[in-house]
Amino acid sequence: MPSNPEWVKALKPSGPQGSELLAQERAKSDLNVDQLAEFMFTKEVLQRNERILNILLAEPVFDKSQNYFRGRNARIEAALARGKRLQQLQVQHNWSKDEFETANSLISEPTPYGLHASMFLVTLREQGTPEQHKLFLEKAEAYKIIGCYAQTELGHGSNVRGLETTATWNADDKTFTIHSPTLTASKWWIGSLGKTANHAVVMAQLFIAGKNYGPHPFVVPIRDLKTHEPLPNVHVGDIGPKFGYNTMDNGFLLFKNVKIPHINMLARFSSIEPKTNKYVRPSNPSLIYGTLTYIRSHIVLQSGSVLARGVTIATRYCAVRRQFQDRDAPATETGENQVLNYTMVQVRLLPLLAATYALHFTGRGMIALYNQNQQRMNSTAAPESRRAPGPEELNAGTDLLADLHATSCALKALASTTAAEGLEVCRRACGGHGYSSFSGIGSWYADYLPTVTWEGDNYMLTQQVSRYLLKSARAVLKGNAGDNDTTRILSEFIRRRDIGAAFDVIGNDEDLVAAFAWRVSFLTFEALRHRDEDKQSWNSLLVDFWRLSTAHAQYMVVKNFHEALNDPDTKKSVEPNTITLLHKLFRLYALNTLEKEASEFYSSAAVTVRQITLARTKAVMTLLEEIRPHALRLVDAWKFPDWQLDSSLGRYDGKVYEDMFHRASELNPLNSVVFDPYPDSKVLFKKDERQNLRSKL
Amino acid sequence: MPSNPEWVKALKPSGPQGSELLAQERAKSDLNVDQLAEFMFTKEVLQRNERILNILLAEPVFDKSQNYFRGRNARIEAALARGKRLQQLQVQHNWSKDEFETANSLISEPTPYGLHASMFLVTLREQGTPEQHKLFLEKAEAYKIIGCYAQTELGHGSNVRGLETTATWNADDKTFTIHSPTLTASKWWIGSLGKTANHAVVMAQLFIAGKNYGPHPFVVPIRDLKTHEPLPNVHVGDIGPKFGYNTMDNGFLLFKNVKIPHINMLARFSSIEPKTNKYVRPSNPSLIYGTLTYIRSHIVLQSGSVLARGVTIATRYCAVRRQFQDRDAPATETGENQVLNYTMVQVRLLPLLAATYALHFTGRGMIALYNQNQQRMNSTAAPESRRAPGPEELNAGTDLLADLHATSCALKALASTTAAEGLEVCRRACGGHGYSSFSGIGSWYADYLPTVTWEGDNYMLTQQVSRYLLKSARAVLKGNAGDNDTTRILSEFIRRRDIGAAFDVIGNDEDLVAAFAWRVSFLTFEALRHRDEDKQSWNSLLVDFWRLSTAHAQYMVVKNFHEALNDPDTKKSVEPNTITLLHKLFRLYALNTLEKEASEFYSSAAVTVRQITLARTKAVMTLLEEIRPHALRLVDAWKFPDWQLDSSLGRYDGKVYEDMFHRASELNPLNSVVFDPYPDSKVLFKKDERQNLRSKL
Repeated sequence: MPSNPEWVKALKPSGPQGSELLAQERAKSDLNVDQLAEFMFTKEVLQRNERILNILLAEPVFDKSQNYFRGRNARIEAALARGKRLQQLQVQHNWSKDEFETANSLISEPTPYGLHASMFLVTLREQGTPEQHKLFLEKAEAYKIIGCYAQTELGHGSNVRGLETTATWNADDKTFTIHSPTLTASKWWIGSLGKTANHAVVMAQLFIAGKNYGPHPFVVPIRDLKTHEPLPNVHVGDIGPKFGYNTMDNGFLLFKNVKIPHINMLARFSSIEPKTNKYVRPSNPSLIYGTLTYIRSHIVLQSGSVLARGVTIATRYCAVRRQFQDRDAPATETGENQVLNYTMVQVRLLPLLAATYALHFTGRGMIALYNQNQQRMNSTAAPESRRAPGPEELNAGTDLLADLHATSCALKALASTTAAEGLEVCRRACGGHGYSSFSGIGSWYADYLPTVTWEGDNYMLTQQVSRYLLKSARAVLKGNAGDNDTTRILSEFIRRRDIGAAFDVIGNDEDLVAAFAWRVSFLTFEALRHRDEDKQSWNSLLVDFWRLSTAHAQYMVVKNFHEALNDPDTKKSVEPNTITLLHKLFRLYALNTLEKEASEFYSSAAVTVRQITLARTKAVMTLLEEIRPHALRLVDAWKFPDWQLDSSLGRYDGKVYEDMFHRASELNPLNSVVFDPYPDSKVLFKKDERQNLRSKL
Repeated sequence: MPSNPEWVKALKPSGPQGSELLAQERAKSDLNVDQLAEFMFTKEVLQRNERILNILLAEPVFDKSQNYFRGRNARIEAALARGKRLQQLQVQHNWSKDEFETANSLISEPTPYGLHASMFLVTLREQGTPEQHKLFLEKAEAYKIIGCYAQTELGHGSNVRGLETTATWNADDKTFTIHSPTLTASKWWIGSLGKTANHAVVMAQLFIAGKNYGPHPFVVPIRDLKTHEPLPNVHVGDIGPKFGYNTMDNGFLLFKNVKIPHINMLARFSSIEPKTNKYVRPSNPSLIYGTLTYIRSHIVLQSGSVLARGVTIATRYCAVRRQFQDRDAPATETGENQVLNYTMVQVRLLPLLAATYALHFTGRGMIALYNQNQQRMNSTAAPESRRAPGPEELNAGTDLLADLHATSCALKALASTTAAEGLEVCRRACGGHGYSSFSGIGSWYADYLPTVTWEGDNYMLTQQVSRYLLKSARAVLKGNAGDNDTTRILSEFIRRRDIGAAFDVIGNDEDLVAAFAWRVSFLTFEALRHRDEDKQSWNSLLVDFWRLSTAHAQYMVVKNFHEALNDPDTKKSVEPNTITLLHKLFRLYALNTLEKEASEFYSSAAVTVRQITLARTKAVMTLLEEIRPHALRLVDAWKFPDWQLDSSLGRYDGKVYEDMFHRASELNPLNSVVFDPYPDSKVLFKKDERQNLRSKL
């Protein structure tokens, strides 16, 4: 790599230096960053992060300095090497699941083992019999076999019932034939399948004597354990480059009448009795949606931290970057103004900062509720079933579980959309430099984007939420509703709707939360009227359902954030000025959301036009001004190490320009090439001193 | 590359085939596609596109089949080869500027010559003297010297006055010394600078005898014409990978006291008299913003077509993709429903389809207005000055020019934001496959994103628009306003505001346009009151200004679209049913916008809550249903050749799945590698048959 000449090395950014500006920012606020961080994550977790970080930093394979320069081939090659080393370290240090996840989160890129370590092992564990555990799970845990979970097909995403791959029971030799009858039956998007896996759990339509019993899971060997070449009549490969997630080998998979033995159908919940050739029904199918609720709750919790990375980077850079003078500044002031001082920047960034905390506390609330519910279920019910069902398989369980399920759907959709779109807002708030890969936001955003589609497409999920809310509303009207928060707010609306609402959204926090609840209830009964009285088609109501689900999720976020702040535990854990500040973030999130969704709040008569105008022009603007001095410490409390962010703009020390320049000038392999610039010349390069593009790992 | 086994080649997608579905779609509508296309683009342009396409298709260097697989190094290498060939073809065919641009648009990626061919040549031409034309321009036009336009610096974007690079006049030897005093003075983001240019037009602060005369343009040699190595005391290189635009070598540039002769200061408008060492003032500085208005008008026009690419791809794919059954469908129907039939998909895509037409007609209107104005100016004024000024350099010229300028700022911001964000909506509307590079939307979106920042950052521009509107409002109140559309709508508001508005937005199109005008006027006088009466600081009003500018731009789009439909020329050019359909698109765009911005329409009392509710639940939903059958033909009328779209999902013939599979399985170089999947093995690959990653061009 080229090195800068001496005279360039001697150059500094014009003053004040980024490091000075960030030091000033930190001095402006009295927020106790460490205390807040411990309250959010616990001391143990923060210490664990640091311990694992030090292990990774000592390993050359995890060096990130060439990440942004590599093309897909080189990136996935590096990711494979990292995945291997990570597994060695896991064995060596005997890492727990949490420790292993911490390492992955610090590395911040998917590895080709990602789906082996998660869905393949989980599915074998939860859907396999003890005999199958011995046969498959033990080898998989030891990485003697590497697998993936193959459900989605080229022509079939969310609709699991539409899968085309078949598994036909052969009564004569007691085997299954796995077959892909069409091109659209090709498995597609399957993580770790493209190049890495030698086994797949394949979801296929089970046929017995010509009758279809629906999708079931089968363990199918797909590559030779020694040569790693595809087995006969298996066509498998990588599906090619994507908008992000390019360190993962998402794959395709086709079968031409491949036979597997009886034991390869995962048989904990349903199976075939080989002597009689009879299908044995799944036990307790109503319990199956625990796992999805759990996964979605984690997406909600994670979304706060996903977004916080972008907010951290943008906030730090906007405190370092200066542009123009304040128009009303006295003529004696000559310096340029920090970009973070402009209200147009604040109004984009600070509500997102508020959202990171709102989502964090909401996710925490969701997971607490999930755990409570699991305990209750475990004490009364059969062992939990944990396979991943399609959205159509979901039926109401107990009242609380159904409520939890609907809430997790609504929140997953809102939280992941908020995080994804918020990251792009953060990137743009960095101006031109946000477009550089060195901002660290673009690739993070691109890698996160699938979350809005997987584990339930965000738009599809809103139908499930609305179905639940309509059902609850019918129950409330009939007077046979169970007791949970949803039925409480719906009942309260019915009780008061003729009296009318008069919420003091600007002066009173309980009223602010109640206004969000009122809007949900109003929209629910509106939708119910359209469906049940006006007999509108389901399809014609999808837009209303999406609005309704969003409203419900926003209410849950506002409510959870409010409850977290009033929790006695919070008061014990952090200083009063921290609570005051978090409280401002709560109000900013709620009032900013209310203002953005003004039209629904009006039409439901939850607020007046005057209140909205006040929220916009006074309350929100005042909150921005009050939160501004604490912005830097509030992002510091998320405690992202620089190595994790891998961002020139988001450096803790503010040395933004030095870092940009170093990466461009000294790490950039393109600068080892000399172009021939003349259109008529026969060569492209006059000189090419790039190392072989293949990284040496 | 691997080839599919025979049994895979024999597979087809499950029926109905994509080709059948698209044929059905096209049969459903009687829209005359060719006639509409000719009306939009003219027959000559459509024929030109086809002619140039055929020339490009015959050249192997323009083969796109490996584009999505290449990393940055290989991509920029291919782009250099293409840029060279393109220049050869231009000479060979003696292409006009329009023909050359057509070729670039069909290739759809920036080449490393991009900034040479545009800003470098334009600046030399417009700011050079005849002597300088001879010295620099002639060689540049013959590609004997290759250049770029170096304005932006590492620490300085929009604020041109803040540039740090200096050009100091040396009275003794009649030279300039170009110098970078700090690291932040490094030129940054400069297109074609990183690897290609051997000259740069450098914007630098001109110092004469210690006095700063502000930024001026200097021609500076930066690389050796033979070896292409940087000249002494010049540090230059590529700034590294970006979110998109990676076929362009955006560069950095630092100088250590580099001397250039007197002739290298571009001297058409201002210069130094070498004998007296005196600065000669620029002639007629008030004329300078013609070029920027022109560029912005073109961004507006282009935005429609930029967005239309995404809408074309998503609409075609959503007509091919089927998922779930309609919930209310009779049980006898077993097939899955086309995704485009779901209202939740329609409400995302069809307003964007409407926006493509709205932006097209608005851009056309803008350019017609610009041309009118130029003619008027040319007949009365001095030769037009065409250098690119910074936003702070802009002063009001004639009334019409100022109005045109403000409108172009407002529309540039709205149009490019609409296109960029709309493309991402299109990508997500494609579900999981939208994330594949083969969708063709992701890379197009990523390459387009800089448009929201360059030629005036979209947020910064809104201040200029508001400044103009406030000034106009003050003039209206004082009774000394000029005559243009803005002062007309402001005056009308003043006349009627005590009487009140009662616009029939759902029943009457003129009223619909008038409601948009009313909202702009209301927001203008609100902002004026805050600034002039309440003496609020400029900074505290930035958010209001941004809203105001957006409202103004939306009004202009609605007005232009409406005028285009009522133009007698339109009625002569297309059949009545086409006008009826375009009219529905107009109403969809306007009512959908009105509903999204409901809160401002309420507060201005332009509409009632009841009207908004009707717009949302009735009018918009009805329009979606009416436009739906024509959606495919409406995107066909944009006439994008498949080669230009380079999208599996957007193929004209609907062979989506075949194309996805072909690219993944047969074109994907990663499938020529066999991983070693075991964490403990010493090697990464068991086999590697990839061709050398360096493409053979």
